[in-house]
Amino acid sequence: MDTHKVVILGGGFGGLTAALKLKNAPVQVTLIDRCNYHLFQPLLYQVATGSLSPANVAGPLRQVLRKQKNTQVLLGEAVNIDTAKRQVILSDGVVDYDTLIVATGSTHQYFGHDEWEEFAPGLKNLNDATAMRGRILLAFEAAERERDPEKLRAWMTFVIVGAGPTGAELAGALGEIAHDTLKHDFRDIDPATTRIVLVEGTDRPLPSYPPKLSEDARKMLERLGVTVRTGAMVTGIDAEGVTIKEGDRTEKIPTRTVLWAAGVLASPLGKILNQNAGAPLDKASRVLVEPDMTVPGHPEIFVIGDLANFSHQTGQPLPGVAQPAIQQGAYVAKVIRARFRGEKVKPFHYFDKGNLATIGRFAAVADLNWLQISGLPAWLIWIFIHLLYIVQFQNRLLVMMQWAWLYLTWDRSARLITGKNPLPLDL
Amino acid sequence: MDTHKVVILGGGFGGLTAALKLKNAPVQVTLIDRCNYHLFQPLLYQVATGSLSPANVAGPLRQVLRKQKNTQVLLGEAVNIDTAKRQVILSDGVVDYDTLIVATGSTHQYFGHDEWEEFAPGLKNLNDATAMRGRILLAFEAAERERDPEKLRAWMTFVIVGAGPTGAELAGALGEIAHDTLKHDFRDIDPATTRIVLVEGTDRPLPSYPPKLSEDARKMLERLGVTVRTGAMVTGIDAEGVTIKEGDRTEKIPTRTVLWAAGVLASPLGKILNQNAGAPLDKASRVLVEPDMTVPGHPEIFVIGDLANFSHQTGQPLPGVAQPAIQQGAYVAKVIRARFRGEKVKPFHYFDKGNLATIGRFAAVADLNWLQISGLPAWLIWIFIHLLYIVQFQNRLLVMMQWAWLYLTWDRSARLITGKNPLPLDL
Repeated sequence: MDTHKVVILGGGFGGLTAALKLKNAPVQVTLIDRCNYHLFQPLLYQVATGSLSPANVAGPLRQVLRKQKNTQVLLGEAVNIDTAKRQVILSDGVVDYDTLIVATGSTHQYFGHDEWEEFAPGLKNLNDATAMRGRILLAFEAAERERDPEKLRAWMTFVIVGAGPTGAELAGALGEIAHDTLKHDFRDIDPATTRIVLVEGTDRPLPSYPPKLSEDARKMLERLGVTVRTGAMVTGIDAEGVTIKEGDRTEKIPTRTVLWAAGVLASPLGKILNQNAGAPLDKASRVLVEPDMTVPGHPEIFVIGDLANFSHQTGQPLPGVAQPAIQQGAYVAKVIRARFRGEKVKPFHYFDKGNLATIGRFAAVADLNWLQISGLPAWLIWIFIHLLYIVQFQNRLLVMMQWAWLYLTWDRSARLITGKNPLPLDL
Repeated sequence: MDTHKVVILGGGFGGLTAALKLKNAPVQVTLIDRCNYHLFQPLLYQVATGSLSPANVAGPLRQVLRKQKNTQVLLGEAVNIDTAKRQVILSDGVVDYDTLIVATGSTHQYFGHDEWEEFAPGLKNLNDATAMRGRILLAFEAAERERDPEKLRAWMTFVIVGAGPTGAELAGALGEIAHDTLKHDFRDIDPATTRIVLVEGTDRPLPSYPPKLSEDARKMLERLGVTVRTGAMVTGIDAEGVTIKEGDRTEKIPTRTVLWAAGVLASPLGKILNQNAGAPLDKASRVLVEPDMTVPGHPEIFVIGDLANFSHQTGQPLPGVAQPAIQQGAYVAKVIRARFRGEKVKPFHYFDKGNLATIGRFAAVADLNWLQISGLPAWLIWIFIHLLYIVQFQNRLLVMMQWAWLYLTWDRSARLITGKNPLPLDL
């Protein structure tokens, strides 16, 4: 008899954990991702702001899984799932499965305004991060050469849309870049006059955190020179700037650099599971999973991570962060192992260890459920946890060293403009 | 009276050294480069082969020059030089000069076969390096998924054109990747069966080195599984492979991955200086400079580095490597300073400290003129020199750590496929 085939789509926190937890299980595991690396997404904003290199926050999937004999890694992009034939259709081939784990996560969305993407890039993968880094640095380069005061002001204004953790982290890092990193780097402009505007639709930054921590985060952001505009809806983005609406008042902020940290949209494989396996979806196109993370009526298909809406515990979907994905990855591996022993496993239960967001040096907020702290203690917890969870021992050392350097000298050594030639500048 | 304006085009070894040596001189220095970083070119092949990250071999020009009050860095691309009006024409502006230093180096060329570039990328800048890294890694990814034995063979064959230092270094690194780094990473292919062919037109690898060292280099390459084909001319490159001619015999090597490490071509600014200032050029479009590195008849225009042909010392142009460029950069700064004191400076004199090329771990050749060594001692000298010369203290530490890691574990952590989506694979 052939070995039972487990195919995992996506090498993020959920998919990679599932693969690792199936080590030595009596199955043949195939992990398929369109990237050849696992990305440590919580630190992606540090690549976008020049503190870390792409390789510091990404570990080659093959390297991570090299010692696991029952596991194969394939580079490929799933475009369809034939749930009747139990086949994953790649853009360049077909892979059979007995059990399927779909962990393809989410991407950013523009609430029906896809035309904004050109002017307001989001941050989901390494290419996004190096492109964002290039745009930020290029704005200062253009400012140094700009003579027209009005155009200069637009180059030196940065608007970040969305004050969730990513938006707050980006805004804080930009504040540090303007006030510290670039302090002595220019001759014709003063980076300290940079205007950084963080726009949020709800009434406070970090709306998923307790109100007290939001207040602390706001103060820390303001100390870094960030203007926090809450209760402000973005109604337009173009080459000249961002239009926001606060109550009845509409205002256009002239800017050349808009960073998008707002909406997320589930991976298109959710809709495919809906069409081909009748999987129920929520409004955000996430799959409403059973208590054991399977698709209703399809015990052989699991959906985990950002693509899953698991509401059985609190009546609300779990947050789209690393912890639920990791725990779900471990859980489905346990379910698959149990099935071979003919055992049942209790429904998935999320253990919320708390949430952390960092704003800058010595500045972070931590909601540990039983304790809410901010400032230096929260920042130390943040450092510790992130170094602990980052994939690969080498990266742990390299990241530690670069952080030590950064926080001692403010030097962001990875501030490179790479990618397509940005010249001539649009002065 | 206005301060004397020195404009430097190019932030490579020559241009950056000139800028640094003009610190506190009674001039206003403007360094213009189309990249925002200085590139430590001798280690670029390590980015292309996944040992180092782009930021490890590049230092932001502004960072390097931040403390130099008389120096401004501008991001820009020089497209013309108006030698009558003493102006540099950028693609997006104009900059006046009193003294001009042209240090825009060289690029790779395909000996009239520009159609080869698509199939045989060269290695001159960071984008080239990450693109080359992606192609190498993608070939192994495609091989793991390829079923057709003939196509598989082509994916697992790598041809490097040109056995100068860059070609030899790339071939050696590929040998280590195939035999060590990727050893346990695949399930359907054995990377140790990778075929690596180094093609060289002359009769030995590293033809600019003494014959004894070429012989040593050949042995080291062969020990790493590299086939060295000398006396072989490349007559064709297409999507299916490389055609080489040895004497009367023609052979087509089927391969999907060709790396170009052969011809270099001087920067187009040489031709512009020829047209606008009557600068004499050699066959490779390099400017034949005066003994003081100026353009004949134009004491206010210096040309240094790869773009200059300085033949006054030996009757031969100096090699296109870092040392002559660095020494010329320092020399022209000295000439400019002396002019303000009304003093004369002796003609430029190149002091050849020797040449180093590395093939792999513990494997290098060193031609120190008075001493020729190879193997471990040469490798230790190579390591020491490169760490000493790399820009920025932080990079020195990071590079040292990553090399220690690499040579202990063979793990190349920066082996990321980034850039445009390579899927679907052409299986």
